[in-house]
Amino acid sequence: MLRGLAQVMFLDSTWTGAVFALALLTADWRYGAYGLGGAVLGTGTAWLLGVSRDRVEGGLEGFNSCLAAIGLAVFLEAGRPATALLAAAVCVVVTVVTAAVVRLLGTWSLPPLTMPYCLLASAVTVAAPALRRLWPHGGGIAALPRAAGGPTTLRLGDVCGAFFRNVSQVFFLDEWYAGALLLAGVFLAGRAAGLVACAGSATGVLTAWALGAPAARIADGTMGCNAVLVAMALCGVFLAATPATLLYALLGAATATLLTPAVAALLAPSGGHAFTWPFVLTTLGFLTAARSFPRMTGPKPGVIGPKPGVIGPPPA
Amino acid sequence: MLRGLAQVMFLDSTWTGAVFALALLTADWRYGAYGLGGAVLGTGTAWLLGVSRDRVEGGLEGFNSCLAAIGLAVFLEAGRPATALLAAAVCVVVTVVTAAVVRLLGTWSLPPLTMPYCLLASAVTVAAPALRRLWPHGGGIAALPRAAGGPTTLRLGDVCGAFFRNVSQVFFLDEWYAGALLLAGVFLAGRAAGLVACAGSATGVLTAWALGAPAARIADGTMGCNAVLVAMALCGVFLAATPATLLYALLGAATATLLTPAVAALLAPSGGHAFTWPFVLTTLGFLTAARSFPRMTGPKPGVIGPKPGVIGPPPA
Amino acid sequence: MLRGLAQVMFLDSTWTGAVFALALLTADWRYGAYGLGGAVLGTGTAWLLGVSRDRVEGGLEGFNSCLAAIGLAVFLEAGRPATALLAAAVCVVVTVVTAAVVRLLGTWSLPPLTMPYCLLASAVTVAAPALRRLWPHGGGIAALPRAAGGPTTLRLGDVCGAFFRNVSQVFFLDEWYAGALLLAGVFLAGRAAGLVACAGSATGVLTAWALGAPAARIADGTMGCNAVLVAMALCGVFLAATPATLLYALLGAATATLLTPAVAALLAPSGGHAFTWPFVLTTLGFLTAARSFPRMTGPKPGVIGPKPGVIGPPPA
Repeated sequence: MLRGLAQVMFLDSTWTGAVFALALLTADWRYGAYGLGGAVLGTGTAWLLGVSRDRVEGGLEGFNSCLAAIGLAVFLEAGRPATALLAAAVCVVVTVVTAAVVRLLGTWSLPPLTMPYCLLASAVTVAAPALRRLWPHGGGIAALPRAAGGPTTLRLGDVCGAFFRNVSQVFFLDEWYAGALLLAGVFLAGRAAGLVACAGSATGVLTAWALGAPAARIADGTMGCNAVLVAMALCGVFLAATPATLLYALLGAATATLLTPAVAALLAPSGGHAFTWPFVLTTLGFLTAARSFPRMTGPKPGVIGPKPGVIGPPPA
Repeated sequence: MLRGLAQVMFLDSTWTGAVFALALLTADWRYGAYGLGGAVLGTGTAWLLGVSRDRVEGGLEGFNSCLAAIGLAVFLEAGRPATALLAAAVCVVVTVVTAAVVRLLGTWSLPPLTMPYCLLASAVTVAAPALRRLWPHGGGIAALPRAAGGPTTLRLGDVCGAFFRNVSQVFFLDEWYAGALLLAGVFLAGRAAGLVACAGSATGVLTAWALGAPAARIADGTMGCNAVLVAMALCGVFLAATPATLLYALLGAATATLLTPAVAALLAPSGGHAFTWPFVLTTLGFLTAARSFPRMTGPKPGVIGPKPGVIGPPPA
Repeated sequence: MLRGLAQVMFLDSTWTGAVFALALLTADWRYGAYGLGGAVLGTGTAWLLGVSRDRVEGGLEGFNSCLAAIGLAVFLEAGRPATALLAAAVCVVVTVVTAAVVRLLGTWSLPPLTMPYCLLASAVTVAAPALRRLWPHGGGIAALPRAAGGPTTLRLGDVCGAFFRNVSQVFFLDEWYAGALLLAGVFLAGRAAGLVACAGSATGVLTAWALGAPAARIADGTMGCNAVLVAMALCGVFLAATPATLLYALLGAATATLLTPAVAALLAPSGGHAFTWPFVLTTLGFLTAARSFPRMTGPKPGVIGPKPGVIGPPPA
């Protein structure tokens, strides 16, 4: 169960999962309950449906349902029974969607990443305003995207806050110390993974500043949270950690940062959120491309794989 | 030609097609003319282009053009010559799109379902307001999705109406007796298919009510029509009809009901309609996933197929 | 480098590339600089990353970055240093996206066409208003699509202008003589290619008029520029030039013309542009479908290929 939490950041470690759970509970105990409950339900459903044992035990069937449950808690009010019931149902469906995405992307030996969660969380949040039981207070959230407002000058406090909130926003948490705790959990699983996560977060802040994003958007971590995940995925998880892949991963992190307002603008008129779509799209693109670049995939072009045993394996 | 109509609901029976044609003509003779003409044009074009004979004779090249023609008749005024000419042209293009979708989805041994029709009907209705010959009266239909309005309490009349209109809305028909006639046509092809259709329609009504959809949306069949198609596709057509697949199919039917307002909200700002996108997306997802669930695909995992001869075969 | 420019219209000729560069420089020297710089940067990055030599030398790694650079110059003001820097970064990322698209579409032996450019240009233009450094003047461009306004009657001047501007708009150029120069470049590479381009442009004008598009939209070439590319791709480039494929290509050109306002309406609420998405979607669909139509692919169904040596080969 805790491995499911750790797999949100590609880590196959029970201890890291425990630290992640602590970070969730510190920020808001209800998010912790949704997250743990989601991981349990997703893993349980996969086990019931007879999904292969290594996926279930590695926590690979828990992280999408964990994120989906937290996402619904954040956007549909965690305290309402209707939200809890819907989150439970969505965790079951996430397992089906995960199996579908694993098989579809398997054609190109690509991992599902958090796409199953993004698909379902997007569908539910977009549909919610049309459904009174999910959205009792009325009033839509759909709006045409507007031009950026507010100052773009970053102060030191903004930069430090952004650095940690880029990590915490992966779990929708606004507290910088939750991000620090999550980062500690990553370092617990491996020093290389932690350093890459830091580099990704820094790239996210730098790119967002260079592009002229409003300081408020940078400081709250919404511009850079995808950069952290992309950097980790491309350097150490799905590609071996080398100087070349580090550069490649940071290019990916910058691309994901640019994609973040793009996805937000595409979904805003329907009332949708970006979730981790920028991470999913960038990572899938860069991973697919890597096989055409001999420098990225090492002596044997075409073989993509993590250093065995260090960080979670790519789903088969 | 009549098989093309029957294939809208996966049925390979000339008699069922005749009953479906009767239902269309009862509701509005022009919709009947568009539907039959569309099925003829689509099948004829496929034959001219040299598509394989079993697809043409099984009616698998007629149902998408049939639906596309009816869809244009409903959204662009059936009585205008421009609409009839455009519908004829679209029926020709549907055949090309069908061949493309068959080949693309063939990579995963997935059927095209009604995706070709959804693609073209969406394109035409979204483009129409920019084209004066198709949309002479002016005025756009694009709008930001709004929060649900109106009461959510269902009366008995709403429930019964919804049960039949969930079937009739597959052909864009509002009349409950057209739905009853269509359902009779399904029972004519096989009792199991009819019962599954009924279970799908009931699941659609129940899910929409549980989610708090406005009663008016449930009663007119727009919330539940995808549920009927999903249930039939997943229990008896593309997966063998067993207790396990029935449960799976009803989970799919509930998912499609949730997806219906999501797709509507995604397309509303562009002026698009949901058509049967929720059915297509849900069924493709659940079919792909089924191969990872040994309980769904029987003793030989990985083999998806209908009971031979009972209900229409999956397009090769 | 010049081959990269020529490959925008599938031509593998240095001389044609030189004429294309002249057309760009005639219209606006800055667009010429962006286009040439983009082709150089894209080709250089591909070479650095170790992409296979025949792709780099054939100019197949230069045309997407060329178009992306011009696209950014047009939509984000060519004269600003931020635009130039961003265009350079995007040209690097285009190479990665090209490698990804080549591999993904390779499953169906489909060419990437201009999809990499469309993906990145769409992402950047949609994201730009949220980023102050890219969009300093404020004010969004997102809007709900509106019904067509203005007269639909075409005068002779409109028709002639549209015929040439359908070609020039491929490079975002409004000047009819730029289109005439580009067309001359196409004839330079081969008479058949030039005639097909003319037929495609004429089909675009005719279809747009028949659908009732506003005369202003037809005359400025935005309705028909995709038709030119589709016609060339389907008759002579990826399918052999025969009477049957010419008809098929013109059906594709008409379809792309209908898709143009559809894509525009889909992206308008997010502030996006159609770019050459209609060409990409139509061509990929029609190419995939062609393998199911023995009349299109000649005696050996399933084999798609150009007449060797006449027009640029499909990317491997």
